[in-house]
Amino acid sequence: MSNEAARQAADALKLRLSEIVGSRQVLTEAADTQPYLHDWRGRYHGQALCVVRPGTTAEVAAVVAACAQAGAGGIAMVPQGGNTGLVGGGVPCNAEADSADLADPLASAGRPQVVISLQRLQRIRAIDTANHTLTAEAGCTLQQVQEAAAEAGLLFPLAIASQGTATIGGNLSTNAGGVQVLRYGNMRELTLGLEVVLADGRIWDGLRGLRKDNTGYDLKQLFIGAEGTLGLITAAVLKLHPRPRAQLTAWLALPDPQVAVELLGRLRQHFGERVSAFEIINRAALELVFKHVPDTHSPLSRIHDWQLLLQLDASSAAEGATLADDLSELLVAEQAAGRLLDAVLAQSETQAAALWKLRESISEAQKKEGFSIKHDVSLPISRLHEFIEQTDARLTSRYPGVRIVCFGHLGDGNLHYNPSQPLAEDNRAFIAATAEVNRLVHDLVHALGGSISAEHGLGQLKREEILRYKSPLEIELMRNIKTALDPRGLMNPGKLLSNSDVAR
Amino acid sequence: MSNEAARQAADALKLRLSEIVGSRQVLTEAADTQPYLHDWRGRYHGQALCVVRPGTTAEVAAVVAACAQAGAGGIAMVPQGGNTGLVGGGVPCNAEADSADLADPLASAGRPQVVISLQRLQRIRAIDTANHTLTAEAGCTLQQVQEAAAEAGLLFPLAIASQGTATIGGNLSTNAGGVQVLRYGNMRELTLGLEVVLADGRIWDGLRGLRKDNTGYDLKQLFIGAEGTLGLITAAVLKLHPRPRAQLTAWLALPDPQVAVELLGRLRQHFGERVSAFEIINRAALELVFKHVPDTHSPLSRIHDWQLLLQLDASSAAEGATLADDLSELLVAEQAAGRLLDAVLAQSETQAAALWKLRESISEAQKKEGFSIKHDVSLPISRLHEFIEQTDARLTSRYPGVRIVCFGHLGDGNLHYNPSQPLAEDNRAFIAATAEVNRLVHDLVHALGGSISAEHGLGQLKREEILRYKSPLEIELMRNIKTALDPRGLMNPGKLLSNSDVAR
Repeated sequence: MSNEAARQAADALKLRLSEIVGSRQVLTEAADTQPYLHDWRGRYHGQALCVVRPGTTAEVAAVVAACAQAGAGGIAMVPQGGNTGLVGGGVPCNAEADSADLADPLASAGRPQVVISLQRLQRIRAIDTANHTLTAEAGCTLQQVQEAAAEAGLLFPLAIASQGTATIGGNLSTNAGGVQVLRYGNMRELTLGLEVVLADGRIWDGLRGLRKDNTGYDLKQLFIGAEGTLGLITAAVLKLHPRPRAQLTAWLALPDPQVAVELLGRLRQHFGERVSAFEIINRAALELVFKHVPDTHSPLSRIHDWQLLLQLDASSAAEGATLADDLSELLVAEQAAGRLLDAVLAQSETQAAALWKLRESISEAQKKEGFSIKHDVSLPISRLHEFIEQTDARLTSRYPGVRIVCFGHLGDGNLHYNPSQPLAEDNRAFIAATAEVNRLVHDLVHALGGSISAEHGLGQLKREEILRYKSPLEIELMRNIKTALDPRGLMNPGKLLSNSDVAR
Repeated sequence: MSNEAARQAADALKLRLSEIVGSRQVLTEAADTQPYLHDWRGRYHGQALCVVRPGTTAEVAAVVAACAQAGAGGIAMVPQGGNTGLVGGGVPCNAEADSADLADPLASAGRPQVVISLQRLQRIRAIDTANHTLTAEAGCTLQQVQEAAAEAGLLFPLAIASQGTATIGGNLSTNAGGVQVLRYGNMRELTLGLEVVLADGRIWDGLRGLRKDNTGYDLKQLFIGAEGTLGLITAAVLKLHPRPRAQLTAWLALPDPQVAVELLGRLRQHFGERVSAFEIINRAALELVFKHVPDTHSPLSRIHDWQLLLQLDASSAAEGATLADDLSELLVAEQAAGRLLDAVLAQSETQAAALWKLRESISEAQKKEGFSIKHDVSLPISRLHEFIEQTDARLTSRYPGVRIVCFGHLGDGNLHYNPSQPLAEDNRAFIAATAEVNRLVHDLVHALGGSISAEHGLGQLKREEILRYKSPLEIELMRNIKTALDPRGLMNPGKLLSNSDVAR
C-alpha cells in the first residue's frame, strides 16, 4: 500500500471510530495522546494513529472490527489499562520503524497502530455473595474491586503497589501477583470467567461463575497472562474470599535465606493457609529505605543481613489471640535453636502498618538512590538460597563493591534482585554493563529451574531475552497459538513474542 | 489407501512399535487387549490395531512418532490411564465405523487406532519438600501420589473414589475434582508443570516447579482437561500442602439446599479455608444406602429431606479442640434460629469414617438399585436451590413418582443429580426417556448459568450434547486450538470435540 493509500485508510478508520465512540473519545492531538504513548517509568515510547476510548463491550467489539477491517491487512491494536506495567506491554511498539520517522507512524516502516484504552469500562456488573464472585469490567481499578468486595463483607485478595491505577484488565493480561499469592494464588487462580473481544471483533462470552466446569478446552486460561496479544479482555468473573478478621504481623531477623525457607515450611505446617505473607528483605534494601524515606525506623535494635515480614490471618479476634500465643512460642523455640536472631510482633495496627511501610518503600528508596539493574525472577523455593549465594558471589567477583538490593515474595519463590554500581563509582560503566549483568543473573536463574519473569511479564523488555531460555519447541507452540487466535498479528504486536516470531 | 495397503501399514507399525517397546508390550490378542477396549461400566467399546505399553517418556515419544508417521496420514492414538473414566474418553471411538465391521477396525470406515497405555510410567521422579512439590509420571495412581506425599509429611489433596486405579495422567487430562476442591481446587490448581508428548512425537518439557512464572502463554493449561486430544501427558509437577493434624466431621440435617448455601457462607466467614468438605445428600440417596449397603445406619434419629456432611481441618489437635467448641456454638445458634434441624459431631475417627462411608456408598447403592439417568452438573452456588426446585418440579410433573437421587459437592456448586423411574414401573419406558430427561435437566442447568459436565469431562458421552450449550464461536475457538496442536486429528479422535468438528 502506498503512503497515500495508507493515509486515506487511516483517515477513514478515524472517522469510523468517531462514529462508534463519538469524536471526543478518539484522541489524535499530541497533548491528548501522550499519556497513552509512553509508560510511566518513561522507558518506552511509541506512536499511534489515535487513542480510542470505548465505553462498553459492544463499542470495544465495533472498534476492534473497524481496525481489523481497515486498510489492506487491518490496523494493529494496543490494548491499554492503567498503563502501570513495567515491561512496556501497554504502549505501542514501533520496533520496525526507523527512529527518525517515529513522529509520523505512517511514514515509518512499522505498521500503524491504534491504542484502545479500556479505562471507561469501569462498571462492577454484579456481586454474588452466596457464590463468592464479583463481575467487573476491564477498566475497573484493582482498588475499586477490592472496595466493592469489602462493601459486600468479602475480600478480593490481589494486592499490588499500583492498585489505585492498575486495572483488572491489565491484572488479567499480566496474570498479576503481589504479596498474597502464597495464600490466594495469582490473578489466574482468582478468575472464574472472562469476556473477550477477539482479534476480528467478535465477542466470546465466557463469563461463567463456576468452580467446576469440564466441558472442553479452558479457553480463559489462554487470555490470562497473554499481555493482550490474543484478544482484548473486557470483563471477568472474579473469586472472592472471606475477610480475615484479625491479622498478626511480625518482623524477624534471620541468619540467611536458607533458614528462612525452612522456617516457612514449619510455619505452614503449623498455621496452614493462615500464613498470608512471607516477605524477605536484605540489608542493602532496608538501608536504602532508612536513607531515603522519611519516618522510617528499624523495628529491631539493629539492621541484620536478612529480615522477614511475616503475616498470619485469623478468622476472628479470639483466634488472632491464640495465633499470637502459638507464634510467640514457635519463635522462642526458633531463637533457642539459633535459627532466629531477633523478632518483634506488631502490637497494634499502627505498628503493623509501619512494618509494611518498610517493605513497600523499597522501590521508592531505590529509585531515589539512582540507577539499578532490576530483575523479577522466581525459583523453586528450595533453590532460592543457592541462587542468592551463587549470584551474589559472581557479581561481587566481577564488579567489586557492587551493591545488591534483594527482596521479594519468598513464599512464592519470587525475588526482586537489583544490583547497583559500587558507591564510589560513576554509574555509566554499570549502565553499560546492563546486558552482561542480565545475562549472568538470568543464566543462573535458568540453570536452577527458575523463571526470568515471575510477575511482570515479557512485554517489549524480555521478548528477545526469553528466546535464550525457552526451548524452540515452546516458542513454536506459542507461535501456533498466536496464529490460531490472531492469524494476522493485529493484537499488540511486538509484545511477548519477538517480532520475528509473529506471522506478518 | 486400499485395504491391502492399510493392512500392510498396520503390520509395519506393529513391527516398529515392537522394536521400540519390545514385543511383550505390544498387545494384539483379543484376550490381552479387551480390558483396554471397553470402559469399566461397560458402556463404551472400541477397536484398536493394538495396545502399546511404553515404559518411559522416550518410548512414548517414539511410539507417538511411529503412529504419526504410519500409513498415509498417520494412525490415530488413544491415550489411556487407569481407564476409570465415566464418559468414554479413554477407549477407542470407532464412531465412523459400520457397527457390523467393528470386529475388524481395518475393514471399517473408521480410521484404525492404537491404544497407548501409560500405566508403566509409574515413577515418582522427585519430592521437593521445601518447595512443596512432587514430580510424578502419568501412570502413577492417585493413591500412590497421596502415599508418597504422606511419607514426606505432606498432603496431596485430590481425592476421588477411584484413586486406587485412576492415574495422574487421567486426573490431569480430565481436570479431576472430588471432595476437597472447596479448599484446594481442582487438579488444574494443583499442577505447576507438565511434560507432554505432542501429536508428532516431540517432547515438550514444561516440568517447572514455580508458583510464579509469567513468560508467555501458559501452555500447560491447554493440556489439562483436554482429555488427551491435544497431546499425551507423561509427567507433572504437583503442588503439595501441609497435612491437617486434626479433622472435625459433622452430620447435619437442614430444611433445604438454600439454607445449606447460607450456612456455607457463615462457615467460611468463621473458619475460612478450614472448611474442607461440604457435601449435600438428599433423602432418596440416603435411603438407597441404607437399603443396599450393609453396616450403614442413620447417624440421626431419622432421615431428613436434606443432610450435609461437613469437614473442618485443623493444623493441630489443640486447634481441633477449639474448632469443635466454635462449631458447636455456631450450630446451637443455627438450631435456635430454626435453620438447623439436627446435628451430630463425630467423636472419633471411627465415627467420622462411618459418616464418610454413607457419602461414599451412594454410587454403589444406586448401582444396586438399578437404572438411573446420571448428571454431573455445576451451578453458581447461589443458583443451586433454584435449580433443584425447578428441576424436581418439572421432572415430577412429567414423570409422576420419579425418584431423584441428588447429592454432591455443594461447596463447589457440583451436584450429581440422578433420576430413577417410579418404583412401581418397569424401567424400559424410563430408559427410553433418557434423552428427554437429559434435555430437561441440561436446559435448566444452562438457563441458570451452569455446566453440563462439572468434573467428568465430555468424552464420547457429551461431545454432541455440548454443541447445544456452547456458542458456535466457542466451539470454533476450540477447533482452532485443536488444529494448532494436532492438525491431522490424530490424538484421541471422537472425544471432547464432535467428529464433525475435527479437521480430518
